[in-house]
Amino acid sequence: MSKHLTKRAEDYSKWYNELIVKADMAENSAVRGCMVIKPYGFAIWEKMQAELDRMFKETGHQNAYFPLFVPKSLFEAEEKNAEGFAKECAVVTHYRLQNDPDNEGKLRVDPEAKLEEELVVRPTSEAIIWNTYKGWIQSHRDLPLLINQWANVVRWEMRTRLFLRTAEFLWQEGHTAHATKEEAVAEAKQMQEVYATFAEQFMAMPVVRGAKSESERFAGADDTLTIEALMQDGKALQAGTSHFLGQNFAKAFDVKYTSREGKQEYVWATSWGVSTRLIGGLIMTHSDDAGLVLPPKLAPIQVVIVPIYKGEDQLNAIFDKVEPIIKELKSKGISVKFDDRDTMRPGAKFAEYELKGVPVRVAMGKRDLENGTVEVARRDTFEKQTINQDGLVEFVEKLLNEIQENLFTKALNYRNDHITEVDTFDEFKDVIKNKGGFVSAHWDGTIETEDKIKELTKATIRCIPNDAKEEEGKCVFTGGPSSKRVLFAKAY
Amino acid sequence: MSKHLTKRAEDYSKWYNELIVKADMAENSAVRGCMVIKPYGFAIWEKMQAELDRMFKETGHQNAYFPLFVPKSLFEAEEKNAEGFAKECAVVTHYRLQNDPDNEGKLRVDPEAKLEEELVVRPTSEAIIWNTYKGWIQSHRDLPLLINQWANVVRWEMRTRLFLRTAEFLWQEGHTAHATKEEAVAEAKQMQEVYATFAEQFMAMPVVRGAKSESERFAGADDTLTIEALMQDGKALQAGTSHFLGQNFAKAFDVKYTSREGKQEYVWATSWGVSTRLIGGLIMTHSDDAGLVLPPKLAPIQVVIVPIYKGEDQLNAIFDKVEPIIKELKSKGISVKFDDRDTMRPGAKFAEYELKGVPVRVAMGKRDLENGTVEVARRDTFEKQTINQDGLVEFVEKLLNEIQENLFTKALNYRNDHITEVDTFDEFKDVIKNKGGFVSAHWDGTIETEDKIKELTKATIRCIPNDAKEEEGKCVFTGGPSSKRVLFAKAY
Repeated sequence: MSKHLTKRAEDYSKWYNELIVKADMAENSAVRGCMVIKPYGFAIWEKMQAELDRMFKETGHQNAYFPLFVPKSLFEAEEKNAEGFAKECAVVTHYRLQNDPDNEGKLRVDPEAKLEEELVVRPTSEAIIWNTYKGWIQSHRDLPLLINQWANVVRWEMRTRLFLRTAEFLWQEGHTAHATKEEAVAEAKQMQEVYATFAEQFMAMPVVRGAKSESERFAGADDTLTIEALMQDGKALQAGTSHFLGQNFAKAFDVKYTSREGKQEYVWATSWGVSTRLIGGLIMTHSDDAGLVLPPKLAPIQVVIVPIYKGEDQLNAIFDKVEPIIKELKSKGISVKFDDRDTMRPGAKFAEYELKGVPVRVAMGKRDLENGTVEVARRDTFEKQTINQDGLVEFVEKLLNEIQENLFTKALNYRNDHITEVDTFDEFKDVIKNKGGFVSAHWDGTIETEDKIKELTKATIRCIPNDAKEEEGKCVFTGGPSSKRVLFAKAY
Repeated sequence: MSKHLTKRAEDYSKWYNELIVKADMAENSAVRGCMVIKPYGFAIWEKMQAELDRMFKETGHQNAYFPLFVPKSLFEAEEKNAEGFAKECAVVTHYRLQNDPDNEGKLRVDPEAKLEEELVVRPTSEAIIWNTYKGWIQSHRDLPLLINQWANVVRWEMRTRLFLRTAEFLWQEGHTAHATKEEAVAEAKQMQEVYATFAEQFMAMPVVRGAKSESERFAGADDTLTIEALMQDGKALQAGTSHFLGQNFAKAFDVKYTSREGKQEYVWATSWGVSTRLIGGLIMTHSDDAGLVLPPKLAPIQVVIVPIYKGEDQLNAIFDKVEPIIKELKSKGISVKFDDRDTMRPGAKFAEYELKGVPVRVAMGKRDLENGTVEVARRDTFEKQTINQDGLVEFVEKLLNEIQENLFTKALNYRNDHITEVDTFDEFKDVIKNKGGFVSAHWDGTIETEDKIKELTKATIRCIPNDAKEEEGKCVFTGGPSSKRVLFAKAY
């Protein structure tokens, strides 16, 4: 493959796809719409998982595991949910292959091994989980039930894209049951805030916290809370959702509890999830024409040390200096790689680590050995500095924090510069077409208007922000009354 | 459900199933042969995963993720492997459901949405992974390739049993590629040793390291290394396998590399896996008629503290004493639960934690408050001791180590008492029938003899132990020449 990476300004979409492959994060597989997540990409997912899992446990949740398959009949129980997912699911109909008698060496489905009831590969697990919860919940003492699952799910998407939209993806799905509506609403809000905190503090990706309009809601939810991020190309990305499910699944699966007062009541539910899609968001928030840019808190390699040497003796002399530094960095929980490969020149190594988004690069050559110095380069700004070896560990520690903050600030400024208030539909179209980003506008609250705007501009309502001010206004499209601005954008 | 747990001597199999359900580890689901792993069971799996993952990374492996589905044609590429798995796999044939026009509210497969090529839900991932490796391996510099995947797999087993044999299960599968046969053989051995170390040091479950006979080998392997454990009922359990795959998959998928000498060579391969089956082994190695017994290193809760009190004041006084102790235990990485539920009597709590296998129980009552003491009970021996509160943390720390060792020693003694050398087939049958455990016997090395012995006794060759001595002998069944004893047993 050519080393050249397409520039973002040339073709953003091509840049994105090339970057993922060149940075060794993922690739398309032999299975339509399914990707292979390569070790470097998976290491980022593992870091995300570790932080999210810690946050889920700190908020009282436990992990469990439910079956991959959902019998068709369970899938039918919640009508809206079934409608939302039936159109795009993988269906298991048989449980055996056999040698094809007409075609030596080939296999075919054994027609005798047809399942009595088809099994759907889970597109999401509400149905199988609520069918299970029925057996777990009898009394108010069994509530709240706070469970999370890390799993793979399958949605038969027609247009797929690495990380952003794949037929199979990895995610976590929380499924909770509560005695009261208030508790369930509070849980859904809490998990939206957990996601927002993770996005901002770890991914350095600012998000807008808001609620979905009715037509953008999860099938089967009474309310869908979302965190919406803005990518560099001006398109929005739904980065995580947290649903208040009301009593819809409890009623569909007949899950009741005996209250303290001895009454039988349906329970209240939430579900919430984020997926490997976050990696797509991470890429499109920070990366540049030289390749990936990773926030230090999620970088698999935080610091790379490249020796610049001629011959074994110089390499050994450099290693003697570097070894205690590596040890000290590691003891502080900083991941370091020492790259002494002799099959590659330093310049090529520098380019590789730029492509892979390693936040800090340290180079040490002959002159550094003489002077007791090293050269430190940061990935986010490409700035280089020569510093004393003595202070390197402290310098790097501080620099990693600085890079983390800088990435967030930069992304936040870009995002804030791309929330444009408009009051006319001409302005609306102009901003969507020429500037991109979020358009903050009044909307009359009807699905018809939403659909019409989408048809004309491809922009959808991303969310009704949690912090939207009450203000009297007129719908940007119909002129009908509105009390709040909502955010529109084109979206991934 | 009744609180009564069937005794092992009454019905071992019933005891096993009841224990899992009563200890809240897992249950059968609405999907035939698939289980739900409940939070308490899943927490044990998470502890296992964390240790194994650390060991894999320490030996140079990285995690990645490959698709759930294997196109039928890839599945056909390695003939033996295909034959081994085709008989028991879930097959996806369609990608959409639709409303059933003949049956309102019901869904049916959309006949228009038939896949051109059927997809098999992975029973194991050699085929999809080797098809991918073809694109990753060109030069000797790309080797070795050391990759592991944590995933769910599906095998359409007819007789299933919680943890031991389920249609869907969770596992890890390592898949490595090497330049030479020697390296691949060494890798397979290394991973067998990693599994053995994990089983013995964390699960406190002694294992025999050995190789499988040809007929018990993994389909597609040249050699299958195994770790075999012995359960309390005298049956063996294959707890983990590590396969030397030769060049079988490299040839099937045409994976070659350019050697240092510039020649094109097929690569050499291994694969290795352990699964949630280990939890079944853990249960059947240590547990007793009172319930689960967990080795401290894998127990989700290592210490439970139960206050015995009347009224708020006493509870508060106990909590004041206990709080700094909990803090200190936690700071040492020991997981502690303080159970002050007022809906349950202390005796019922004691029984619950016995059932759940919590290694150490600490009780503190009014008299303890006056005397500055606590009562400490260990789960493995039921021994109780009253000790001073001052020394509790050190005492518990030591006790956890002692319990871990004691469980291993007990299991090792049982296992060693159940390896019986026999030299006649009458003895063989007698031991298999009446004593159980491993029978160490000479075998003439033929599949015919192995099959015949299995037919007559239900015992199979579990392994040819790595440390089997060379000795001249006669096959216990045919009298044919043999140079080593092998281990037979009935197995799960």
